[in-house]
Amino acid sequence: MHRYRSHTCAQLRPEHVGNTVRLSGWAHRIRDHGGLLFIDLRDHYGLTQIVVDPESPAFKTAETVRGEWVIRIDGEVKARTPETVNAKLPTGEVEVFAREIEVLGPAKELPLPVFGEPEYPEDVRLRYRFLDLRRETLHRNIMRRTQVVASMRRRMNEIGFNEFQTPILTASSPEGARDFLVPSRLHNGMFYALPQAPQQYKQLLMMSGFDRYFQIAPCFRDEDPRADRFYGEFYQLDLEMSFVEQEDIFQTMEPVIRGIFEEFADGKPVSQTFRRIPYAESIRRYGSDKPDLRNPIEMQAVTEHFAGSGFKVFARMIASDPAVEVWAIPAKTGGSRAFCDRMNAWAQGEGQPGLGYIFWREEDGKLGGAGPLAKNIGEERTEAVRTQLGLEAGDACFFVAGRPEKFYAFAGSARTRVGEELNLVDRERFELAWIIDFPFYEWDEDNKKVDFAHNPFSMPQGGMEALQRQEPLSIKAFQYDIVCNGFEIASGGIRNQLPEVMVKAFEIAGYSQADVEERFGGLYRAFQYGAPPHGGMAAGVDRIVMLLCGAKNLREIALFPMNQQAHDLLMGAPAEASPAQLRELGIRPIPQPPKG
Amino acid sequence: MHRYRSHTCAQLRPEHVGNTVRLSGWAHRIRDHGGLLFIDLRDHYGLTQIVVDPESPAFKTAETVRGEWVIRIDGEVKARTPETVNAKLPTGEVEVFAREIEVLGPAKELPLPVFGEPEYPEDVRLRYRFLDLRRETLHRNIMRRTQVVASMRRRMNEIGFNEFQTPILTASSPEGARDFLVPSRLHNGMFYALPQAPQQYKQLLMMSGFDRYFQIAPCFRDEDPRADRFYGEFYQLDLEMSFVEQEDIFQTMEPVIRGIFEEFADGKPVSQTFRRIPYAESIRRYGSDKPDLRNPIEMQAVTEHFAGSGFKVFARMIASDPAVEVWAIPAKTGGSRAFCDRMNAWAQGEGQPGLGYIFWREEDGKLGGAGPLAKNIGEERTEAVRTQLGLEAGDACFFVAGRPEKFYAFAGSARTRVGEELNLVDRERFELAWIIDFPFYEWDEDNKKVDFAHNPFSMPQGGMEALQRQEPLSIKAFQYDIVCNGFEIASGGIRNQLPEVMVKAFEIAGYSQADVEERFGGLYRAFQYGAPPHGGMAAGVDRIVMLLCGAKNLREIALFPMNQQAHDLLMGAPAEASPAQLRELGIRPIPQPPKG
Repeated sequence: MHRYRSHTCAQLRPEHVGNTVRLSGWAHRIRDHGGLLFIDLRDHYGLTQIVVDPESPAFKTAETVRGEWVIRIDGEVKARTPETVNAKLPTGEVEVFAREIEVLGPAKELPLPVFGEPEYPEDVRLRYRFLDLRRETLHRNIMRRTQVVASMRRRMNEIGFNEFQTPILTASSPEGARDFLVPSRLHNGMFYALPQAPQQYKQLLMMSGFDRYFQIAPCFRDEDPRADRFYGEFYQLDLEMSFVEQEDIFQTMEPVIRGIFEEFADGKPVSQTFRRIPYAESIRRYGSDKPDLRNPIEMQAVTEHFAGSGFKVFARMIASDPAVEVWAIPAKTGGSRAFCDRMNAWAQGEGQPGLGYIFWREEDGKLGGAGPLAKNIGEERTEAVRTQLGLEAGDACFFVAGRPEKFYAFAGSARTRVGEELNLVDRERFELAWIIDFPFYEWDEDNKKVDFAHNPFSMPQGGMEALQRQEPLSIKAFQYDIVCNGFEIASGGIRNQLPEVMVKAFEIAGYSQADVEERFGGLYRAFQYGAPPHGGMAAGVDRIVMLLCGAKNLREIALFPMNQQAHDLLMGAPAEASPAQLRELGIRPIPQPPKG
Repeated sequence: MHRYRSHTCAQLRPEHVGNTVRLSGWAHRIRDHGGLLFIDLRDHYGLTQIVVDPESPAFKTAETVRGEWVIRIDGEVKARTPETVNAKLPTGEVEVFAREIEVLGPAKELPLPVFGEPEYPEDVRLRYRFLDLRRETLHRNIMRRTQVVASMRRRMNEIGFNEFQTPILTASSPEGARDFLVPSRLHNGMFYALPQAPQQYKQLLMMSGFDRYFQIAPCFRDEDPRADRFYGEFYQLDLEMSFVEQEDIFQTMEPVIRGIFEEFADGKPVSQTFRRIPYAESIRRYGSDKPDLRNPIEMQAVTEHFAGSGFKVFARMIASDPAVEVWAIPAKTGGSRAFCDRMNAWAQGEGQPGLGYIFWREEDGKLGGAGPLAKNIGEERTEAVRTQLGLEAGDACFFVAGRPEKFYAFAGSARTRVGEELNLVDRERFELAWIIDFPFYEWDEDNKKVDFAHNPFSMPQGGMEALQRQEPLSIKAFQYDIVCNGFEIASGGIRNQLPEVMVKAFEIAGYSQADVEERFGGLYRAFQYGAPPHGGMAAGVDRIVMLLCGAKNLREIALFPMNQQAHDLLMGAPAEASPAQLRELGIRPIPQPPKG
């Protein structure tokens, strides 16, 4: 017999009754029932109930066993009596009567209980992560994560993509976030950097004549920790293709992403065709470029109904600035003063002056709008608003006014809030969509200049002609996201592989050709020696896994994350380096006052 | 029709004759044959011959096209005449007559030719790696690498292993090599480290209740560059299992490694069962713990034949020290004075006083040993040596004497040299073997103390009892390598998961319990809360790919390697950091004199 086990803790069934078996695992739970000891023995695969009766030669050892000890047991499989069968457990029809128990790994008193998974402070959980990871929910989430990643790889391989590992010790490339630097021992005073993404390398692979690259790629950004962002490192399903247009990326990747969601959705519906929503439309309808499409609310402009109306606040704004609009957030079933007032109070809590509303009710057989706004703009305009939005008695509508670029984000939050408060959001599905036609440039208010809105490596729609003739802020890029349930889960673009177009694009954002050569030398050089048209995208592995696990926090889907202070409490990082190490690296810490 | 291609450059066959097709790719080679232009169009998948005749509207553009320009061509597929069929090319029965050519990406004059792959200086190749990677051999090697890695993943998944990504920004763990450090911006004066291997994390995964972990894992070591070692980062197929003994690892991994070799061996024979050779035996037979078993030479001790013999140099050494041995390196077919003298001269070039030999010849129908040694020890002893080694007329034998631990490495080199010079090595096969029973400790001559021979995390054979009772240098570890054709391609062990055995093992090597807690705190802590027996190994991806590609240099199987001075010439790393970056990181370079 094998030294440690003849079966895993998930394998025994009624057909094994009468067999002598050997199991190894952790003592998950120990109960004493009138002299009989019951041990739920747990391993990676499942649970099996062990019974030790006082007559067994194993009893004396069994009495010493405590929770989370690792033990090996030999014993006989017996059928449980009908009333003790546990239908929830795959091994629940049998139990093993122990004849021999060997302690393989005892445990000190547990700083963190595994059984039952009670709430525990984060720092204890991270310091004793090896115990935390034994807990059922986290263990299952991590396994789901490995399966999601394996599915990504399988699906990409199946459609002819090959996985390449790109360098991790590389050059600093200012892509927006802060780099992690690695001091060079062989070249003191010089530094490598960890890649924020393999963006340049994957494009270089296309220049190198490869096609259909992908990678489950570690990415590194030294951004301040946040609850919804890992500190330090995170993973992307990164991919790139040659000789493609935007439509090819859509046709290639939509089935992959849909397939992954369907595989792990536990039967929840997944969008069969991803809607394609232009960025500008997404902002106007949903107040966001990552709309939660499970929320049926679509906003509409109702400016005309307020222009010159009796609601002077809006009317004056409209009159004084042609860019001002009024947007309506329809709220089906929200037609009560109590709800409308609650939303108004929420808006004030968000730093807004308030949230105007109308709600409709039937009184004496007559449908009419209610609330101060309705009164101010009068019956006819109120009815016009209602008709435009298709609202009924029992519904409400909220209004925001101003320059859309100033208020759309707030309007989007209000839309989300209304949908959630009124239970209009169907949480049990995955709504996936492409957001397309992102603006190429944006206005950088801090530096009073035009800058790249997203990825400077994207191809502007219209190419060189657009760069030369269009107003920069009106230029769109061949750039797209995939959104799911209110989160951006992927982002990509068709790249700008023409060196002169690249130089022009950077010139508009205020960078000289010398800047381009200095910052993106390798890539810029490659563009000059036969560059194929190419494009791709990167999907956020962590975010996708979170959605598929229904997890609220990144810690619930990560193996060994750092805490919110960027400390690895298990391994003790960061830590001081020895003077000898620092001398070899040619650096010295600057003495500093302690931080707050 | 698709914007860029209806087919790849590897797809067209006689059945496409008459079709109008669109291809995109690189102009691999351009020839002018009496007015007709021939362009070999290349993409990732293959080559297709394009013909442009002077009547074609595409001719004018075609005349401007130079090597490595990226072009799109539309044209008609035609059958080649029988005498122009190229049987070596999958598309060699057809050619495409171009009707239209569009230049998608022109190229400046090439600093590195792609066609023909002439030798070129390393620095140019690395600086223009995107051109280098288009070359057929390197392109094919890289694709083979991606396929080998994909095969590893597939095979591991098939036998129930799951891939986990372990942290890359972690704590310094002194495992023998130098760490790369990453200064912390949020905790100035503190440093993260890049993992030399995921050793501690994979063991922590077993403590966390997972089973059958694997990872294609990036590893980082700041060792001086060498031709046979990547600077900076390299990849391992890393794995770990719970509740296993050494035999389980062998049974699990031997089919995986054999399968990978068979899949990519191009028909060369691969060992069907891996021999298991104890370390001590490997040293005695092959003078190495990574023997090339394609070399049939096995050394033997022949001390007794020289003890008290007329060859005074050896006889005196043997008499003065009971640890002295004489080893024989038999050399089938090496029985000529010229060859023996050449080996002797080689040994002197290696810093040895010389290499004693006997060779056998038949003279006047009588078999006899020749050379000074034979004369010195006399006919009877010469014949005894010959009989022991099974040598014949036309064979030779070389001898080394001394304490084996001092000379075995040289004896191993001599064995290799003899095998190669005499063409005894069958290069067209893969000979795989397990080397087992490595010593747990070794004598550290520099510090005059016992130290760990290899992995301090291995379980000593005999456990605590061995540590308490055996002479430390005689203790073996549950530790093993896989060797192939003279290279170590994998290494592993059964781990020591018992905290008190770990403390004792470190104590013998001169480390206190406090040292253990400080250096391996996370792991040591985990061992105290229910640790399962576990073990695993790590296989070197780069080395395996090199063997399977028949490549001589790591650069021939790597995408974007650094040069021998640890410079990334393509991306320009390492580079200076900005004063602002350094200020944020709280470090400052120590001004130093320039290095030689």
